[in-house]
Amino acid sequence: METQTRPQITAEVTNGVCRLLYHHQMSCLTELRLGNGRRLDVLALGAKGELWAVEVKSSVEDFRADQKWQSYLDYCDRFFFAVPMDFPRDLIPDDVGLIIADRFEAAIIRQCEETSLLAARRKKLLISFGQTAAARLQGGGSDAVFVT
Amino acid sequence: METQTRPQITAEVTNGVCRLLYHHQMSCLTELRLGNGRRLDVLALGAKGELWAVEVKSSVEDFRADQKWQSYLDYCDRFFFAVPMDFPRDLIPDDVGLIIADRFEAAIIRQCEETSLLAARRKKLLISFGQTAAARLQGGGSDAVFVT
Repeated sequence: METQTRPQITAEVTNGVCRLLYHHQMSCLTELRLGNGRRLDVLALGAKGELWAVEVKSSVEDFRADQKWQSYLDYCDRFFFAVPMDFPRDLIPDDVGLIIADRFEAAIIRQCEETSLLAARRKKLLISFGQTAAARLQGGGSDAVFVT
Repeated sequence: METQTRPQITAEVTNGVCRLLYHHQMSCLTELRLGNGRRLDVLALGAKGELWAVEVKSSVEDFRADQKWQSYLDYCDRFFFAVPMDFPRDLIPDDVGLIIADRFEAAIIRQCEETSLLAARRKKLLISFGQTAAARLQGGGSDAVFVT
């Protein structure tokens, strides 16, 4: 088996996650630069306005290096880590969602409780989601800050 | 001067409109298939969640053939017709906005009053805007129905 680089694994898991969420009738934006300076791998929008954030961790080192993932909770109703098949799942905290993915498929191994966003916050996120997606469609906006 | 076809004029005016609205910090989606069966040429989303709908009319015939443009008002806070430079502007009703555009530039000739959408309706539109834009980014969703 070939050894993959960290960006390769991240890209494959991200693709698997987007395909999975598409089947849940959710539309995904990837690699968002957040107002708090962090990047979020996937933000998915459902038909009722629900927002799911997914952070991909390619390896144990990648996971352990992230001490501030809780800041993603401000951007979503549900938060998931997504990891490759061989990732030791016990490391992931019990109270967040877990998705296992590779290039070809992905599965929600553990759902998490919904902590519903406040209406004003959701509106702000919906606006930013629409503006970012439309700007990217027009060939720009990839580095725009996504909500402060 | 070459004679242009109606689709060419529509495309050029649409491009001019999107460029103009971009300078107003609005993000545009084009050619939306609405739940009422009609197509809308441009829907633009601003940073405060305001929605502007723009319908392009390439010629007087094109304008006169549209007896139901009022149905677009359900989808926006402001509604504009956009027409080419040589269109007789007096034909456009006084109580809607007017944009004059060609391939290179566009200008808002007349602003219109804002008729603010109800919050629940705006939320539905924001969700559909985000989902449609993200689906198109991922290579699909062009023909999805945009809000019923």
